[in-house]
Amino acid sequence: MEHEVVIVVFDGVQSLDVSGPLEVFAGAARAPGGRYRVRVASLGGGAVASSSGLGLVPSVALEEVGRIDTLVVAGGEGARGEADPALVAWLAGACGRAGRVASVCTGAFLLARAGVLEGLRVTTHWAYCEELARRFPGVEVVADPIFVRQGRVVTSAGVSAGVDLSLALVEEDLGRRVALAVARHLVVFLRRPGGQAQFSAPLAQQWAQRPAVREVQHWIVEHPGADLSVQALAGRVGLSVRQFARVFARQVGCTPGRYVERVRVEAARRWLEESEAGVEAVARRCGFGSAEVMRRVFVRSLGCSPAGYRSRFHGGGV
Amino acid sequence: MEHEVVIVVFDGVQSLDVSGPLEVFAGAARAPGGRYRVRVASLGGGAVASSSGLGLVPSVALEEVGRIDTLVVAGGEGARGEADPALVAWLAGACGRAGRVASVCTGAFLLARAGVLEGLRVTTHWAYCEELARRFPGVEVVADPIFVRQGRVVTSAGVSAGVDLSLALVEEDLGRRVALAVARHLVVFLRRPGGQAQFSAPLAQQWAQRPAVREVQHWIVEHPGADLSVQALAGRVGLSVRQFARVFARQVGCTPGRYVERVRVEAARRWLEESEAGVEAVARRCGFGSAEVMRRVFVRSLGCSPAGYRSRFHGGGV
Repeated sequence: MEHEVVIVVFDGVQSLDVSGPLEVFAGAARAPGGRYRVRVASLGGGAVASSSGLGLVPSVALEEVGRIDTLVVAGGEGARGEADPALVAWLAGACGRAGRVASVCTGAFLLARAGVLEGLRVTTHWAYCEELARRFPGVEVVADPIFVRQGRVVTSAGVSAGVDLSLALVEEDLGRRVALAVARHLVVFLRRPGGQAQFSAPLAQQWAQRPAVREVQHWIVEHPGADLSVQALAGRVGLSVRQFARVFARQVGCTPGRYVERVRVEAARRWLEESEAGVEAVARRCGFGSAEVMRRVFVRSLGCSPAGYRSRFHGGGV
Repeated sequence: MEHEVVIVVFDGVQSLDVSGPLEVFAGAARAPGGRYRVRVASLGGGAVASSSGLGLVPSVALEEVGRIDTLVVAGGEGARGEADPALVAWLAGACGRAGRVASVCTGAFLLARAGVLEGLRVTTHWAYCEELARRFPGVEVVADPIFVRQGRVVTSAGVSAGVDLSLALVEEDLGRRVALAVARHLVVFLRRPGGQAQFSAPLAQQWAQRPAVREVQHWIVEHPGADLSVQALAGRVGLSVRQFARVFARQVGCTPGRYVERVRVEAARRWLEESEAGVEAVARRCGFGSAEVMRRVFVRSLGCSPAGYRSRFHGGGV
């Protein structure tokens, strides 16, 4: 019996969210023993307009889909905004009977609306993790993983992470050799190194309301290489360490130590992306003391080493 | 004035070859100063069927396209097989007047047919490099790069490499910051580590006709960790080193040393993909003598270290 894969599309879908999983499952379907039937489906079966203007023509209407072994819900502006209530209603029903359910990128918003993610750990595009958590308080949103599996529900990080998620499902169904062959054919890694955090843009600063604390924040950003111990920072504003730490945490939303670390990581990322400076020099300039300390902080917060980060995000001529 | 990007599609196109570049340029168009207009176009402007069944609806007919600043030709089965002569004729004309011309994956076959690649260094999907070189002797095909720039002609490796190529063009047009922002939004690296070779499947063996040489080949494949010096191999078949090297090279198509290295690299790749053995143990088992020797051979032939290779292609549970 064929394994029925249904990929859900709608107006405002991100085209890469669709073609990534589609090509992974279609590639696996061509492998020996690959028993997938892969169909793209929309409400009513009509063509949909992707967010970049390319029209997509589904092969079937959602209403006509029978058995579903794997349901893949793509993301895009149309998933995060005001989605069609009929689509949400269809999802609520279909997710109950599907063998497993996957979302790509902001497709998690559609699953959350359909009530499928309640009480689960999930992920979505790094830029929308906060919004998903705010809008659906019953859902536990984690920002770093490329994808998260919770029983029969799998959610992936942004856009291209739909490829990683689909490869993992193919590996589960057909084994590592088939998944590897498909990954190689698409010229993508079977396991990409590091998590989603390495892709995320610098966090928007939360500035304190109290001017003295705000000035300390500015000073930290401008002098990441300075002595930024709590003692030194508290001394700058004439407060005791305890008073300073309490005021800072209340106004900024994290401890001074955590704030300093974040600012230093962001400064180091910029230097690694834009300069030719060695890792040791970047570590010193950004206040890490040594390349080894910076390496540990990078691995913990971004899931990759400074050298790995540079090799992936440093620019250069064509 | 807007920069006109035209992405060419046809029946049998690979959907990821289209959506990758489309989303990179469309993402850059939304950036401050991003002055791209991105259109997908087919002959006659009608919908086309991608190789995985998803229909794509272009926004314009190729015949109606005016100025072209960047022409992107996607790949897929429809590019490598018997392409529409009208499409090839249109390309021959359009490539002459386009500001720059890019191919994704096997889109290079269409450009080659249109006579655009004559005398140039180009690349294509690793599985089709040999075919491209055979069919178009005037084209110099290189198998490893993710993309190759030759003046105003850029060709990319397989499928997802169209994203890398497009990011490089955006970086050239709008700078590193915009390219980095687009890459992050799509959750892809701006520069992926290593070349296309790390994705390519083991080369099909060329077996010698002469049984004694074929037996040596089998023995090498089954004992990658043994002493495989030319002396030792020649001794196995009772030939002098000179005689053996000459016969082997004529029948197998490469020197014994090169053959042994290839077999050892393939054996090490399999162990790194499938086992939990440490890099040092894999190096010994596959006859590299030391992890450092294996590292050098990997970097030279695959563009990445054994540890990097494992992190990208080793399987694991979901």
